[in-house]
Amino acid sequence: MGDIIRETGLKYRNWGKWGADDELGTLNYITPEKIVQATRLARRGVVFSLAIPFDSKGPQINQPRRFNPIHRMILTGPDFTSGAVKRPGNVGFADDMVIMPLQCATQWDALSHCFLDGRLYNGYDANLVSSEGAKKNGIEKMAQGVVTRGVLLDLPRVKGVDWLEPGYAITGEDLEAAIRAHRVTVGTGDALLVRTGQMAMCRARGGWGDYAGGDAPGLSFKTAGWVHERQLAALATDTWGMEVRPNEIPDSYQPLHQVFIPNMGLLVGEIFDLERLAADCAGDQVYELLFVAPPLPITGAVGSPVNPLAIK
Amino acid sequence: MGDIIRETGLKYRNWGKWGADDELGTLNYITPEKIVQATRLARRGVVFSLAIPFDSKGPQINQPRRFNPIHRMILTGPDFTSGAVKRPGNVGFADDMVIMPLQCATQWDALSHCFLDGRLYNGYDANLVSSEGAKKNGIEKMAQGVVTRGVLLDLPRVKGVDWLEPGYAITGEDLEAAIRAHRVTVGTGDALLVRTGQMAMCRARGGWGDYAGGDAPGLSFKTAGWVHERQLAALATDTWGMEVRPNEIPDSYQPLHQVFIPNMGLLVGEIFDLERLAADCAGDQVYELLFVAPPLPITGAVGSPVNPLAIK
Amino acid sequence: MGDIIRETGLKYRNWGKWGADDELGTLNYITPEKIVQATRLARRGVVFSLAIPFDSKGPQINQPRRFNPIHRMILTGPDFTSGAVKRPGNVGFADDMVIMPLQCATQWDALSHCFLDGRLYNGYDANLVSSEGAKKNGIEKMAQGVVTRGVLLDLPRVKGVDWLEPGYAITGEDLEAAIRAHRVTVGTGDALLVRTGQMAMCRARGGWGDYAGGDAPGLSFKTAGWVHERQLAALATDTWGMEVRPNEIPDSYQPLHQVFIPNMGLLVGEIFDLERLAADCAGDQVYELLFVAPPLPITGAVGSPVNPLAIK
Amino acid sequence: MGDIIRETGLKYRNWGKWGADDELGTLNYITPEKIVQATRLARRGVVFSLAIPFDSKGPQINQPRRFNPIHRMILTGPDFTSGAVKRPGNVGFADDMVIMPLQCATQWDALSHCFLDGRLYNGYDANLVSSEGAKKNGIEKMAQGVVTRGVLLDLPRVKGVDWLEPGYAITGEDLEAAIRAHRVTVGTGDALLVRTGQMAMCRARGGWGDYAGGDAPGLSFKTAGWVHERQLAALATDTWGMEVRPNEIPDSYQPLHQVFIPNMGLLVGEIFDLERLAADCAGDQVYELLFVAPPLPITGAVGSPVNPLAIK
Repeated sequence: MGDIIRETGLKYRNWGKWGADDELGTLNYITPEKIVQATRLARRGVVFSLAIPFDSKGPQINQPRRFNPIHRMILTGPDFTSGAVKRPGNVGFADDMVIMPLQCATQWDALSHCFLDGRLYNGYDANLVSSEGAKKNGIEKMAQGVVTRGVLLDLPRVKGVDWLEPGYAITGEDLEAAIRAHRVTVGTGDALLVRTGQMAMCRARGGWGDYAGGDAPGLSFKTAGWVHERQLAALATDTWGMEVRPNEIPDSYQPLHQVFIPNMGLLVGEIFDLERLAADCAGDQVYELLFVAPPLPITGAVGSPVNPLAIK
Repeated sequence: MGDIIRETGLKYRNWGKWGADDELGTLNYITPEKIVQATRLARRGVVFSLAIPFDSKGPQINQPRRFNPIHRMILTGPDFTSGAVKRPGNVGFADDMVIMPLQCATQWDALSHCFLDGRLYNGYDANLVSSEGAKKNGIEKMAQGVVTRGVLLDLPRVKGVDWLEPGYAITGEDLEAAIRAHRVTVGTGDALLVRTGQMAMCRARGGWGDYAGGDAPGLSFKTAGWVHERQLAALATDTWGMEVRPNEIPDSYQPLHQVFIPNMGLLVGEIFDLERLAADCAGDQVYELLFVAPPLPITGAVGSPVNPLAIK
Repeated sequence: MGDIIRETGLKYRNWGKWGADDELGTLNYITPEKIVQATRLARRGVVFSLAIPFDSKGPQINQPRRFNPIHRMILTGPDFTSGAVKRPGNVGFADDMVIMPLQCATQWDALSHCFLDGRLYNGYDANLVSSEGAKKNGIEKMAQGVVTRGVLLDLPRVKGVDWLEPGYAITGEDLEAAIRAHRVTVGTGDALLVRTGQMAMCRARGGWGDYAGGDAPGLSFKTAGWVHERQLAALATDTWGMEVRPNEIPDSYQPLHQVFIPNMGLLVGEIFDLERLAADCAGDQVYELLFVAPPLPITGAVGSPVNPLAIK
Repeated sequence: MGDIIRETGLKYRNWGKWGADDELGTLNYITPEKIVQATRLARRGVVFSLAIPFDSKGPQINQPRRFNPIHRMILTGPDFTSGAVKRPGNVGFADDMVIMPLQCATQWDALSHCFLDGRLYNGYDANLVSSEGAKKNGIEKMAQGVVTRGVLLDLPRVKGVDWLEPGYAITGEDLEAAIRAHRVTVGTGDALLVRTGQMAMCRARGGWGDYAGGDAPGLSFKTAGWVHERQLAALATDTWGMEVRPNEIPDSYQPLHQVFIPNMGLLVGEIFDLERLAADCAGDQVYELLFVAPPLPITGAVGSPVNPLAIK
């Protein structure tokens, strides 16, 4: 039943809100003042990387299109120590390369990643995302982002569990309860980091298993309105797909994506590792932070690997 | 004559300074206090991306090992708009991938990128950087970096020229003159951004030409001591190779790299686009900023693409 | 004016000729008897490889989508000689990989490579060649090919020139004249190898230049009927694009491809190196041979690299 | 105990046999007469491809370095049918690419693939196979091969079993028994195709399992002399690694490779699909054939994917 997706998408649609030519979506909520204020949240000078390791042990197991990063050397130490390769002055250099889907590990979804009825965010034609790359809403348009206030909502900790079970649909009430418990606010231009604990679960059971594409805790489709009202700049989770799986709407596929990305123009992050940050926040009870997560400006890309930093 | 390289390297060697197990090098100069102070430099809330576009039009022209990023789609808009591919609910998703050398565009050199006489920074064996990747000094060790104060030194602007000519060797006096002209300080834990204007030159002449590997302005080998004394955390330029080319020492290849990286443990950045930032600094005469430039934590990598952000 | 393309295509269309499910096209002309007869053409036991080297020095210069093969080592001699990597018994192994467009060097065009008005050879929907690969007419369907009689027509030699000039349109008369001069026949099930000498020209001038996609000698659009009547199994040239360039029909792009591939179902080969074979044929005046050119059965591929062998 | 490997290697070493500059090894056993004779074995005009499909469902499961072929489209049918991409005359073209280890599927091992005590076949230094590729014994040197007589030895059929069990070491007696049972000869310059039935086993059990690198039937180390005396040009099996696994010699890794490749200069093929061919041979009781298996001439490669053809 796709109507509820289209109805909800239409209800929270931000097309035209920042101009007919806009390709930034909710990043527009981040004002210069917001950026300055966000930097003041760095109080202890501690930095947390929210990226998982980019390597062959990542979560892309038996996926149809995505695979784990393939890192290969181009030039090595042994090339030089063995005398096989030489440079003047007997110096040595190593070089390397990577082959990876842009959404194989910690990632931003570009606003060109999803489309509904042939339309991208702000009404652009989905045919503009052909084999030639995204001519609209490409991730490179966000090269100056993302710098803003980040807020962590640690749902399992609030609920007193190690992790939310796969299939658990996070509601607006859950988010509000976490906000209250953390004594934090969530507002315009914030990057909301929602911890489900699924990564902790994977580590506890010793492997990614079906983390990529299998059942997972995540946002309920019903949170669309809550997110819209909060005027978030970005939203990221520690799961593969941000929203609850199995999806709540019959015969749908990642329906909340369709509300958030092509309609709302919301920047969505996935596979964020929130474990160390969450432990720190539990320690000092400060759940707000300076969040800096610049995508790689790959021209025409529909996503980007990212090493998001949380600075407290 | 390699002796001067080895002598200079030995003189400014930081091995053991931060422990026998250290793999962070000069990033250790960045203290929590430094991070907090750096964030206060964000005064106007303006963000500058210092990355060039990651695409096929990059500077890697006819290079023996490095090539420009190859971005290819995995799933497209037309797949769905044409009806060739379907998802439940008639939603559509685009996906993509990249193939790229890790040092093909704006980049950090990992401390495993260079070695002299078979030794990496902190004395590790260069054989630890085999075809299996860097087991020591890999870029993933720097996942929590780089957050610190950045200082831009805009040399051509100080000298009243559009750009420094290829082959121009920047001296300690040049750097000091820029510091005075910009009324800025440079000190422990800073990331120093040195603009030579070579990118402006390439744009003026309409192409990268031999930017990658050809003659270039850059730091003189004689600045090694100056850099060492300043206790920089990182140093980046708008050129392919940071140091002046042709190299100043006969029969050598990138000799300053050998002092900076394996001996000093200095984080070096290259192909940083400093043009927009420089224009802004010339406008408000503020040459210090919050610098955030997280590498992608690719396990065992000897470099990383990066989208460095300068926040003022 | 596309009508002439469509009219000609319709005239020589082989859809349904070998069944509604056929995906082999003109390879069907090769009967078991033909194969046996072809093998008897190996009289001297001399083998010619018709492939150019697959490496970074290939012809794909500044192409929008295709690039030269990227060959990278995965494990090397120095890894072992340096002691960096070890295997039991002190043995050593090298490993490697390739990244390449399937049509970057000597190649077969699969019958899924071209389509006209949304239709592939035998009427299949062009949407079956989506980002998920070719579900019809993929090159893997030709895994048992190509084994047949080959005939070389050495046009420049017949005309007494070193090579045909770029822009020269080879006519049916030219082909007939070569057949007469070579005292050879061309018939059902043959693989016709047409030498234009363009590769000799590139070597004489010291580089590929605009070989890939620039002006080139090649078959005139008017040879469509001649080729159709001959009932060739395959046709290959020493040029990038088989047909003459600039194309003869205004506002068209490789129009003869559209007649040959989606309509006729003809297997087309490009970038075949015919130089050594041509010299040999000029020597013994034997222009027929055993031709064996198996594609790599890459599932769903629209082309394949190939090392075609001519055996005399 | 590596001595037996070195002793055996030395005993069957062919260094210098075909000149100090030779890079072809046992392919030298194939004379022009041999080639002509081999072609006469094509009697029925039937062709068998011995390649497995090159795709993501291949046997490289959880391997440290090798992965299954990654095939991706560069340009598709939907790009054109949707109108997203246009060419003059409304024609359409599809393009694609592959990323693959050269030894991920049906393959030839180049003579640069293995080395013992720092030496390749014919005594070349293993350092010549650095990150810059194989400067000696690269697969491109074999571009004119492999055309010769092929002989299939179908061991399980001779033994009356469906397949040889993993760990079964094929002896010279087994090979002789098969030769007798098949009423065939094996001699100088032949390509010997040894069927163990392991692929049939994988298909029967529904998956590759640990086919790549796990226990497998294969040649016993003790067959080294038998193979040497037969003066084979090439030897291929339907297994991942040709020789029996677990390896018979304690503390060794693929010891027979070290005798065959760097010492004997024997061309070794792996992951050959012999199932259909074996069924045909069982039917007509003819176990000799024309064998044509040209490698892709990838410059400096230590292996090559191949689609070997058996023609009867």
